[in-house]
Amino acid sequence: MDIVIYIYNGLTALDAVGPYEVLSRLPNANVKFVAKEKGVIVTDTHFLKLVAENDISEIDKADILVVPGSVVGFIREAKDKALLSWIAKINLTSTWTTSVCSGSIILAAAGLLKDKKATSHWGAIHLLKEYGSIPTSERYVQEDKIITAQGVSAGIDMSLYLASQIVGIEKAKAYQLFIEYDPKPPFDSGNVTQADVATVELAKKILGKEAKKDLSLWDIVKNVQSLIKLKRGK
Amino acid sequence: MDIVIYIYNGLTALDAVGPYEVLSRLPNANVKFVAKEKGVIVTDTHFLKLVAENDISEIDKADILVVPGSVVGFIREAKDKALLSWIAKINLTSTWTTSVCSGSIILAAAGLLKDKKATSHWGAIHLLKEYGSIPTSERYVQEDKIITAQGVSAGIDMSLYLASQIVGIEKAKAYQLFIEYDPKPPFDSGNVTQADVATVELAKKILGKEAKKDLSLWDIVKNVQSLIKLKRGK
Repeated sequence: MDIVIYIYNGLTALDAVGPYEVLSRLPNANVKFVAKEKGVIVTDTHFLKLVAENDISEIDKADILVVPGSVVGFIREAKDKALLSWIAKINLTSTWTTSVCSGSIILAAAGLLKDKKATSHWGAIHLLKEYGSIPTSERYVQEDKIITAQGVSAGIDMSLYLASQIVGIEKAKAYQLFIEYDPKPPFDSGNVTQADVATVELAKKILGKEAKKDLSLWDIVKNVQSLIKLKRGK
Repeated sequence: MDIVIYIYNGLTALDAVGPYEVLSRLPNANVKFVAKEKGVIVTDTHFLKLVAENDISEIDKADILVVPGSVVGFIREAKDKALLSWIAKINLTSTWTTSVCSGSIILAAAGLLKDKKATSHWGAIHLLKEYGSIPTSERYVQEDKIITAQGVSAGIDMSLYLASQIVGIEKAKAYQLFIEYDPKPPFDSGNVTQADVATVELAKKILGKEAKKDLSLWDIVKNVQSLIKLKRGK
């Protein structure tokens, strides 16, 4: 089973790593981290770097496609026509097409969510309308083979549900136990409709601060690329 | 604030990425992914590779140390005397020393958990006794400045609690909202004491299968290192 996780500079790591940690346990899972150009991919914080071992040009199908989100990087991705064509092409081959967080905006820009219900991070969900999608505040939203999840950590819930659709509830429950997913957040402020006003304001400030970081991303990317070279070919 | 996340071949990615995603939002956070040898680190599944930008020899202090777990790799780490000395040395400088999943076995082997309560992944927690630690089945366990968390996903809960200890509950609640951590697992099988017998048996089978993968890890590590070279020095 080919699980293709698209990664890009500026992505939020947990958006990708949550679903990966669940879906990689599926029988015969073959997970590929794929980027526009293979090599080192710098996340939104600049601190964590992931390795993409394939260019998108090398990948023409997937059983499951996962598109993670980002603080602002998704806006660039959602304007990249070559990328959007690739996503639309992979979607034609996939059994499941999924997104986490603002990754749904990329799916929407690729034309996959027109007239469909979808969700996203609370800071990005309003953008879905611009692509004719119907913003829906649920932990994850399924429309046929497309499943979109809310922000960052929601990819864990979404992928457990997806696993249950593929291998049944019994195995999916075992994956949950494997990652000991028995969440006990010390506070109850993870949902924007329930968090108090001060928390929402603080979280918006953090979003703004993290967004500014994105502007310096390209210097970091350049430095990393000069530091770490990925040999092309074999 | 220096946050040092120790990574090693065979680690479970979410163990490291969960706390990273929370703690990297702390004011003035400087997160370093550190390994015995800097370069590409291969996770337990072999599919995901993370980049360590520092050797442990380059790091001699941390405000927060995070040690993630693994399926079996932690057993190798817990026998590596040079690593254990480094962990003990960093612990002398740290304000907080933490672990996720079987990472606590590494802390225990470094002598940090003697006569202290600690937790771990349900598949590894019994090993704590061998190091004089007191196995304690809670989501996370604090003993002064040391906090150990249960398996894989528990690092998210632990690090939100830790953030609240450092910057107060108000900011920590905003970090929770930032990552939209409003967990809604589709099933209730994340806790080994509540999961049904069949789920536990299946999860043990997966653990066994993943453990076997570890044996082929070194071929993968060799291949990746020849593919991706990290230039030493500046």
